[in-house]
Amino acid sequence: MLHEDRLFPANEATRAIARRIYEGIEDLPIVSPHGHTQAGWFVRNEPFPDPVTLLVQPDHYIFRMLYSQGISLDELEIPPQRLRPVAGDPGGKTPVKDPRKVWHIFASNYHLFRGTPSRLWLDYVFEKLFGLTERLSAKTADMYYDTIESKLRTPDFLPRALYERFGIEVLSTTDSPLDSLEDHKAVRESGWKGRILPTFRPDATVDPAVPGFQENVAALGKLTGEDTASWSGYLRALAVRRQYFKSMGATATDHGHPTARTADLSESKAEWVFGKVLAGEADAEHEELFRAQMLTEMARMSLEDGLVMQIHPGSVRNHNAQLYAKYGRDMGADIPMPTDYVHALKPLLDRFGNEPGLSIILFTLDETAFGRELAPLAGHYPCLRLGPPWWFFDSPEGMRRFRELVTETAGFYNTVGFNDDTRAFLSIPARHDVARRSDAAFLARMVAEHLLDEDEAVELAQELTVGLVRKAYKLEAVRSKE
Amino acid sequence: MLHEDRLFPANEATRAIARRIYEGIEDLPIVSPHGHTQAGWFVRNEPFPDPVTLLVQPDHYIFRMLYSQGISLDELEIPPQRLRPVAGDPGGKTPVKDPRKVWHIFASNYHLFRGTPSRLWLDYVFEKLFGLTERLSAKTADMYYDTIESKLRTPDFLPRALYERFGIEVLSTTDSPLDSLEDHKAVRESGWKGRILPTFRPDATVDPAVPGFQENVAALGKLTGEDTASWSGYLRALAVRRQYFKSMGATATDHGHPTARTADLSESKAEWVFGKVLAGEADAEHEELFRAQMLTEMARMSLEDGLVMQIHPGSVRNHNAQLYAKYGRDMGADIPMPTDYVHALKPLLDRFGNEPGLSIILFTLDETAFGRELAPLAGHYPCLRLGPPWWFFDSPEGMRRFRELVTETAGFYNTVGFNDDTRAFLSIPARHDVARRSDAAFLARMVAEHLLDEDEAVELAQELTVGLVRKAYKLEAVRSKE
Amino acid sequence: MLHEDRLFPANEATRAIARRIYEGIEDLPIVSPHGHTQAGWFVRNEPFPDPVTLLVQPDHYIFRMLYSQGISLDELEIPPQRLRPVAGDPGGKTPVKDPRKVWHIFASNYHLFRGTPSRLWLDYVFEKLFGLTERLSAKTADMYYDTIESKLRTPDFLPRALYERFGIEVLSTTDSPLDSLEDHKAVRESGWKGRILPTFRPDATVDPAVPGFQENVAALGKLTGEDTASWSGYLRALAVRRQYFKSMGATATDHGHPTARTADLSESKAEWVFGKVLAGEADAEHEELFRAQMLTEMARMSLEDGLVMQIHPGSVRNHNAQLYAKYGRDMGADIPMPTDYVHALKPLLDRFGNEPGLSIILFTLDETAFGRELAPLAGHYPCLRLGPPWWFFDSPEGMRRFRELVTETAGFYNTVGFNDDTRAFLSIPARHDVARRSDAAFLARMVAEHLLDEDEAVELAQELTVGLVRKAYKLEAVRSKE
Repeated sequence: MLHEDRLFPANEATRAIARRIYEGIEDLPIVSPHGHTQAGWFVRNEPFPDPVTLLVQPDHYIFRMLYSQGISLDELEIPPQRLRPVAGDPGGKTPVKDPRKVWHIFASNYHLFRGTPSRLWLDYVFEKLFGLTERLSAKTADMYYDTIESKLRTPDFLPRALYERFGIEVLSTTDSPLDSLEDHKAVRESGWKGRILPTFRPDATVDPAVPGFQENVAALGKLTGEDTASWSGYLRALAVRRQYFKSMGATATDHGHPTARTADLSESKAEWVFGKVLAGEADAEHEELFRAQMLTEMARMSLEDGLVMQIHPGSVRNHNAQLYAKYGRDMGADIPMPTDYVHALKPLLDRFGNEPGLSIILFTLDETAFGRELAPLAGHYPCLRLGPPWWFFDSPEGMRRFRELVTETAGFYNTVGFNDDTRAFLSIPARHDVARRSDAAFLARMVAEHLLDEDEAVELAQELTVGLVRKAYKLEAVRSKE
Repeated sequence: MLHEDRLFPANEATRAIARRIYEGIEDLPIVSPHGHTQAGWFVRNEPFPDPVTLLVQPDHYIFRMLYSQGISLDELEIPPQRLRPVAGDPGGKTPVKDPRKVWHIFASNYHLFRGTPSRLWLDYVFEKLFGLTERLSAKTADMYYDTIESKLRTPDFLPRALYERFGIEVLSTTDSPLDSLEDHKAVRESGWKGRILPTFRPDATVDPAVPGFQENVAALGKLTGEDTASWSGYLRALAVRRQYFKSMGATATDHGHPTARTADLSESKAEWVFGKVLAGEADAEHEELFRAQMLTEMARMSLEDGLVMQIHPGSVRNHNAQLYAKYGRDMGADIPMPTDYVHALKPLLDRFGNEPGLSIILFTLDETAFGRELAPLAGHYPCLRLGPPWWFFDSPEGMRRFRELVTETAGFYNTVGFNDDTRAFLSIPARHDVARRSDAAFLARMVAEHLLDEDEAVELAQELTVGLVRKAYKLEAVRSKE
Repeated sequence: MLHEDRLFPANEATRAIARRIYEGIEDLPIVSPHGHTQAGWFVRNEPFPDPVTLLVQPDHYIFRMLYSQGISLDELEIPPQRLRPVAGDPGGKTPVKDPRKVWHIFASNYHLFRGTPSRLWLDYVFEKLFGLTERLSAKTADMYYDTIESKLRTPDFLPRALYERFGIEVLSTTDSPLDSLEDHKAVRESGWKGRILPTFRPDATVDPAVPGFQENVAALGKLTGEDTASWSGYLRALAVRRQYFKSMGATATDHGHPTARTADLSESKAEWVFGKVLAGEADAEHEELFRAQMLTEMARMSLEDGLVMQIHPGSVRNHNAQLYAKYGRDMGADIPMPTDYVHALKPLLDRFGNEPGLSIILFTLDETAFGRELAPLAGHYPCLRLGPPWWFFDSPEGMRRFRELVTETAGFYNTVGFNDDTRAFLSIPARHDVARRSDAAFLARMVAEHLLDEDEAVELAQELTVGLVRKAYKLEAVRSKE
């Protein structure tokens, strides 16, 4: 199923260059600085459950496509979000009554994924991990199911064994400030050499639109011993948790706001808005203003503690109201919207944009911003770097457009390599492979058109694969500890 | 003039694949589910008039380009819109005094169309229909004129003969609810085997900004015997006409609103807005709100009668005020604007987005929405499908960008194949040929880069050419009647 | 360093076509209708200073990239803008204390420019002008510095000699209405055959947001003897200066507004807004309205005096507040924003859009407007033409996207060829060469895919290189005087 030249340009001379570039990066370690795996998997090191609970249930790329073609979530036995934490979780109990039946639905509709990155990732997992080389279909569904299920029960498919087999150098998770990081602690103390790092994602405590915001702020106070009912106590509490995350290996924060808006309010105005949101008296504009101010507060704290800041804006979450009411969030109904950066980031940049110690990695779901705003911003401000194409754009075409739109203005060195950004642990090598092949293809085209020399392309490929990632996410220290 | 490999990638290996894919679809029937031809042409079956009245006068792609280069509409003898219904109409009387002179202007400026799809379509018509193989120019103008004019007088060039020669399986027109559909009726009763289906396009009766809106609503009442001065009577009247269209073979509706905005007002609020627009007391926001509500009402009716809904938003109509005053609409001065879908469609989708019986085909003139909003929406909601690239983007580059921006998120199966969307009857095979070649080229690149196997590409090409079209527009029934 | 096939497609057959097309345009004269060189350079004809003052200091493409990677402006000895007029100026005194040290910083970071057009331009200058063929790096830094510095002192590198060596046919500068054009006069009277033409850029006198606006309007009055405190006197003064520019060879005006907004106010309303801005009592909306009105006034004057109008909108100037406070403008911190044309231009077009004598060349920093608004507008209005990709998009990818997005709707003949738009005199041939190669590559792909015949591509390449430029900027007369 997997052709050795997949994703390389058809032109023979260019393809030969792409092969040579790829050879230099194919076997480099996987540096995964942003994603949604769980530290607990590596603490417990239990087997992953059946194929459906592993590959279908937790993957909104997959069930959204099936749903879009009229297959109901009931047929797929997709549970509501509150029952889904265990889905795909090694050792988790499967909530699926008839996984083989669901697998058949998936297999019979595998043609729907033609042309999607899911197809690329799945074929890679099927062939490289499970040795399956005939295409998935209704006909091969049982053979697939049996093969995968039996392999999952072998020691080679336990989380730690896979981590090592995948050649992972470091794997960052994404965690709430309220998380005790007990699992991260347990990994560190286990003697196992894998490096699982937490990331400080404070949305639940800084975004008033998150259900339970007030309770979360109170819990933050309890956890830190700070008076989070006061603005200064609230900020201190966040700083304390950041410090704790840092002590557990965190090198970065992450911020999933609806927009990229920032603010630089006076102390008293900020305190006033905090009072409004905490009292539950804020309207939408107050909530937006508070989030905006919090991005600037986070930048200020980053200057103090050195954590790299990631901003992931621009998604209309839970667009499907009926599904949200019934199933909760993360049902494949998050839809991007136009996202402004040039005005939105100005207040933060006016205050901290030239600080040598600050580092902010920007992401977008609005590709029009790449050439128009993001590359010009990152090609000027010393604190800004551009994250890789995200979510719907984590794909061969998305990566090609990203490089085409960004490189001429911001160069390669204002980008930060690849993020797999996934909760699908098994797909991590597949995703990095697509990124490496896409980079090799892009660089090969530049060499073939004499825009770069081949030695430069080879060096750049290394940078995009590991060098710039380690640097941007300050992972050198982690590495040198090995 | 027409190279057999036109539009295929230059790389030899990829081109060979494209050829093989194209072979499988080249001769498939033409399914044309959306366009602007006239049923009457096939009733009367009279010859098309001279070359100019056939090819220049009615084609705003052509006269807008000539006009943009300083050639006046007077020189081209373009009549005001109210005198134009007959233009291009077989059997229509030509209003052009000196068609040969106009033809010479067109021929002498044929270089202006280099790189445009008009050039591709025209060359196809010239060579395939009229046997002309030397490029059109001042030098060949008379030869062209004489050849075309004489052929138009032969029986082979009568509308029904052309329909059959083109291999058309079904041809949908676009019609006002006030249209009696007498011509459609006559076609059905004629015994001729061609299938000409009406499409219910209610703009004139649901968009208060259309001149004559109030009169149209009154006429709708007269036609149906409903009291269209009342909100409930108005809705009933529309439902009655939809039913009538359905009885005449219609499978779809079409909605050409300025924006994609929808609303889900309370009964009383909807009634109030209807009162305002009917009284002519509505401001722009009321008008927009009314159109928004009517899209949701149309979706509700679609759930009842099964008509597929098409939405074509985002055009600033009649941008050129002076030309509009003098000539009326459709003068080549409709200009696209940024178009939101993610917020605009939410009210409708909140109400009906998960209904299994609903089917909505979305179009856009704002390509930035393809990857950012439309593919994510269509890749989730079961009721949504994406129409092909429309109008200015019905072109090789437009089609390539569409597939590149849409496929990775929505796949191929949430798209609906090609629409020729034309009033230029003679260009229909040319337009479908460009679409088939563009699809073959896109799929061949995927095969060459090992993203798809060739058997999958061959199957997909069939789907894009006929399978998905018949399914999306519910044309299977029509076909099985043959 | 410079491969003879650089920028041509890798496919051998297509590359061969590109070579043939390029051969026909490689040695055509350089027509440079818009840029930021100085007439005075050609009056004084003194040597350019050292490599750093020539190539690093004045080039915001270069120092913005170095700054974005944490290299301080102090290290680079970049002076504040008020001290920068002399930078890069032949005969100007270098303000740089240790140019060799700055050159080393630049050379050691030359890898940052991989994939950027700066790299293409610089390599061209290094090899073609200075005979340097080994890549710039820390290792070759001194060799480069010594070679360039010594050549700059030879007569072959004086401005007039370079102008002739470059094969420049005409070179337009960009000038304030308050400029006496003494240097342009001196060139004309010098007997030297080079043609340096001024361009009327009235921003300083029509944009109330420009610091010193009121003083500038007063100075305009003094210069023309008109009462610029009155609306009518102000307009007369501008018309007088336009007339003077025309007498000095100007064929065009240029307008660098924040947006493309136009207005068509009543006489009394216009007078009222003028009063507000002149009194310094205008808010942001008044200022915007005044700029909008002034675009329409400029169009009116263009109809009278025949000057071609250029509009360059859409840049948020001086985005970096701290840098602006310390260094002034033009520090590489101008960031594009979304830019509307379809609504913005309507008032002007409603009034003058169909005037045969008017000519407006539109530019954009928002590429989304190319296909959606600009190509449809230029493909209809006789007064509109599209300028080449500007600034961040003056690059191979930018040029490819421009042609792909524009050609199918507006054709080639509604575009105006290339603008180098630079103050970096030495880079002019490099920039035109990139444009010519990019055009050859684009046309070759069309020929290879049988969308154009090769003879048409050859003719089009000539048009894009010189024909359409001379015509759009009315430079035929200038040429015929030679």
